[in-house]
Amino acid sequence: MSKALSIFDTTLRDGTQGEGISLSVDDKLKIARKLDQLGVHYIEGGIPGSNNKDIEFFNRVKELGLSAKITAFGSTRRKDSNTELDSNLNSLIQSGAQAATLVGKSWDFHVHTALQTSLEENLAMIYDSIAYLKRKGLEVIFDAEHFFDGYKNNPEYALAVMRKAEEAGADWLTMCDTNGGSLPHEVHDIVTVLAGQVTTSRIGIHTHNDCELAVANSISAVRAGAEQIQGTMNGYGERCGNANLCSVIPSLQLKLGYNILEADQLKQLTSTARYISEIANVNMPINQPYVGSSAFAHKGGIHVSAILRDSRTYEHIAPETVGNQQRILVSELAGQSNILSKAQGMGIELRSDNDSTREVMSKIKDMEHEGYQFEGADASLELLLRQANGELKELFTFESFKMLVEKSADKPVVSEAFVKLNIDGASVYTAAEGNGPVNALDNALRKALISYYPGLQNIHLSDYKVRVLDDKEATASKVRVLIESKDAANSWNTVGVSGNVIEASWEALVDSLRYALLRQTKREGYEEIPSAGRGLINH
Amino acid sequence: MSKALSIFDTTLRDGTQGEGISLSVDDKLKIARKLDQLGVHYIEGGIPGSNNKDIEFFNRVKELGLSAKITAFGSTRRKDSNTELDSNLNSLIQSGAQAATLVGKSWDFHVHTALQTSLEENLAMIYDSIAYLKRKGLEVIFDAEHFFDGYKNNPEYALAVMRKAEEAGADWLTMCDTNGGSLPHEVHDIVTVLAGQVTTSRIGIHTHNDCELAVANSISAVRAGAEQIQGTMNGYGERCGNANLCSVIPSLQLKLGYNILEADQLKQLTSTARYISEIANVNMPINQPYVGSSAFAHKGGIHVSAILRDSRTYEHIAPETVGNQQRILVSELAGQSNILSKAQGMGIELRSDNDSTREVMSKIKDMEHEGYQFEGADASLELLLRQANGELKELFTFESFKMLVEKSADKPVVSEAFVKLNIDGASVYTAAEGNGPVNALDNALRKALISYYPGLQNIHLSDYKVRVLDDKEATASKVRVLIESKDAANSWNTVGVSGNVIEASWEALVDSLRYALLRQTKREGYEEIPSAGRGLINH
Repeated sequence: MSKALSIFDTTLRDGTQGEGISLSVDDKLKIARKLDQLGVHYIEGGIPGSNNKDIEFFNRVKELGLSAKITAFGSTRRKDSNTELDSNLNSLIQSGAQAATLVGKSWDFHVHTALQTSLEENLAMIYDSIAYLKRKGLEVIFDAEHFFDGYKNNPEYALAVMRKAEEAGADWLTMCDTNGGSLPHEVHDIVTVLAGQVTTSRIGIHTHNDCELAVANSISAVRAGAEQIQGTMNGYGERCGNANLCSVIPSLQLKLGYNILEADQLKQLTSTARYISEIANVNMPINQPYVGSSAFAHKGGIHVSAILRDSRTYEHIAPETVGNQQRILVSELAGQSNILSKAQGMGIELRSDNDSTREVMSKIKDMEHEGYQFEGADASLELLLRQANGELKELFTFESFKMLVEKSADKPVVSEAFVKLNIDGASVYTAAEGNGPVNALDNALRKALISYYPGLQNIHLSDYKVRVLDDKEATASKVRVLIESKDAANSWNTVGVSGNVIEASWEALVDSLRYALLRQTKREGYEEIPSAGRGLINH
Repeated sequence: MSKALSIFDTTLRDGTQGEGISLSVDDKLKIARKLDQLGVHYIEGGIPGSNNKDIEFFNRVKELGLSAKITAFGSTRRKDSNTELDSNLNSLIQSGAQAATLVGKSWDFHVHTALQTSLEENLAMIYDSIAYLKRKGLEVIFDAEHFFDGYKNNPEYALAVMRKAEEAGADWLTMCDTNGGSLPHEVHDIVTVLAGQVTTSRIGIHTHNDCELAVANSISAVRAGAEQIQGTMNGYGERCGNANLCSVIPSLQLKLGYNILEADQLKQLTSTARYISEIANVNMPINQPYVGSSAFAHKGGIHVSAILRDSRTYEHIAPETVGNQQRILVSELAGQSNILSKAQGMGIELRSDNDSTREVMSKIKDMEHEGYQFEGADASLELLLRQANGELKELFTFESFKMLVEKSADKPVVSEAFVKLNIDGASVYTAAEGNGPVNALDNALRKALISYYPGLQNIHLSDYKVRVLDDKEATASKVRVLIESKDAANSWNTVGVSGNVIEASWEALVDSLRYALLRQTKREGYEEIPSAGRGLINH
């Protein structure tokens, strides 16, 4: 039997200390539900002693009936004060959380500098606070702040803190690398020392990523005896973030054989990570290990031909294990073979010895040179390839668009768009308002097309990104617009590039609707888009 | 004396395998010059056998007279062929690079699957290729692809490959964790075995970040005997990237005492990393260890009050050592103390017991709730604070703006803006064209203001970012615009939020010019902006 480990997620507490991360109570509840489905064992919800938002979270999370233990975070009692009267400790009890994370000092320097009290009083603060919460029936996780720095500076005192916490009845003794400055071999050595002294409590680890070593330090601590790992999804957290559970969990489970999540739950890792990045409104780095969209994306020509033979040649795990997928990228580095294999995945038969194939390859290269990027815009690429293959008919002939934004003092801003197209020989001229210029343009374009193509009714734009391509003269330089569109079942991405953000948006909008109609036509003609193609556009 | 390590940078070769990374020859030359100033020992420039762009790089880099050794990358000879006639090997010689990185197979599975040849022929390919390049006077770095996977599968064969490379005269035997699936303790054990067998060659390490362990694995290998680390700046590279030299270098030098860069060079680490991210046109993650803008940014109220007493309480190194700086963030989590200390840094005397202070605090909170973020827009925050302090006079009264974008088939797109302001009682109405809508707006606004405020002449926008705040209905939702502006000496950031991207841009533009004038007025009045304030806006 493999050994079990418990995962303590603090995305909702330490994660929100990250720059740019801000979560409403509703956001937190959504994330808690998702974390529970993933199967983490503890969900730290916030600091009930610090603000009303967190108190509301603890009240409302009870209604969700989650399996994970809900945990509230707070500090040991104030110096020279009475535990029973400590409002912070009482807020932990009142929160109704099953477990409390209690942070205390274990670095003598901090006791003197930050707490400004004596080493003895700090021990008493820790003992009293833990004993009080234990008497009230809470599971107590003692977070020894700066444990590793403390141990390096004064090992006797750091260990005395832990012994005192154990004596008070702490269920868990968690060593925090608060400043994120420790190295894996140091963590291994220090955890080994502590593990040799602890008898009734169990050991946890909480690391920060200031040296890009939070994941390594967590694994190192587990190998030395830690049984609980505190971390956050996507590694959110103050400064450089906390240990990234999206990397910690699969490495421990798939590579070291620890028993953490069910195989079905592990398959939700990628979608959970992406969901949380959406809720937190933070772009996920494409190269994020295990769950990023590039994590199993292959660009080099030689690599691509090898993985087409056997994916183990350049993949350390099967991407499906964590719910991710393999992708073949198109880029100037890639040989023709990448585009051909991508076309094949889309069900397009391109022949490599064909003039129109050579033409579209060179067109793609030129467009990339101008700033287009098809790595994130599979639908635009598919349109180019199918057009080269003579499969597409044009939806309309473009005549003109106009876009007007007007703002007067004390009046709301107004956006209008005017679109003139020729559809099947008829001239169509429409006007529409919108919340913003691109929305107005989108509305006017749909209005023009919808009576001819009613299938466009259920398409909507789900993401809109603007990238300035040359930072030197920001508002006078080229921009790339990426649009993500969705219908009930699928999503797809299109791209536009121009010196003018409105023109670039128009291009991506038009591609989006052309692609939607292409897919519908295929369906109506009973000509299924092959599943590989559907997979590829669905990231 | 501490032990020296050599840094092998492959940003220009393996880094460009990263999704979204594409470098022109000019870009590569700029980066090479910067890497050389930083003091890396080897710069791998590309694959001369693969394309003309890389050949041009090797020709032109000679003119730069760099101290670092320039290295060219290629594979061992093709199977069953003649070394002297191998065009790839000859391209390495012709490139004029002082050193060649030669990649060969060390995993028997790959020899069979990817090369489709015999284990013996693979050894011969390695021996012949290295011996040939050594005869031609090149330093040879043998990159043993998949060494760790190979060792785990067939240790005898993996070691036989290395012995053969050493026998052929390879200067360096570099163990590659090509698929990025190895763990630090495995790397340590395997490097230890190899180090026990090697006599004349030296050992190098090349890791990938698929488990978020590339930095840890590099450090682990060094501790077991590796003397050269291959990696990339900012960790660029295929899939999840390569070992991030921006994290590897300072950890080895500052924490383990290895001798790598001069202290002055290490201070250039942050600016070098940021420069390369600009050239590569990839946003640097704000939470990147050591060099990210959040790496020493403090948000939590308790942390902030402690670091104001002693920065070692929550910083693992002094940020200046790597050329970075401490930042105090403003956020809803932060107590009033963050804003007060930030105001102090800007030289604004805000009193905490004051009505107007309480008012501006609550206004900032409301604006953050609406989607504003001042963490990346210090100049907008400073304007708010100075306004609350009664220090600002308004530049103008806004009356209206109009913005028109027009595009007809076969004609270039046209953007025009019309701006009506009241300046010192006079009504000013201007019109201007631009490359895009924001540029037109910027031009019209300046045109209106410039005869009143000639100091605006030398300001230009250097970055423009748009963020959709709610992904559910992309083109109909709120957007946040961040603008970076520059004059000859400084840069500053401003923010605007609206449902309409044009209105949000207008807001950020107006703030940018207000801030520029505020700084100029201060300078003219001999009232210096304190250096802390200047530092804070200069990130």
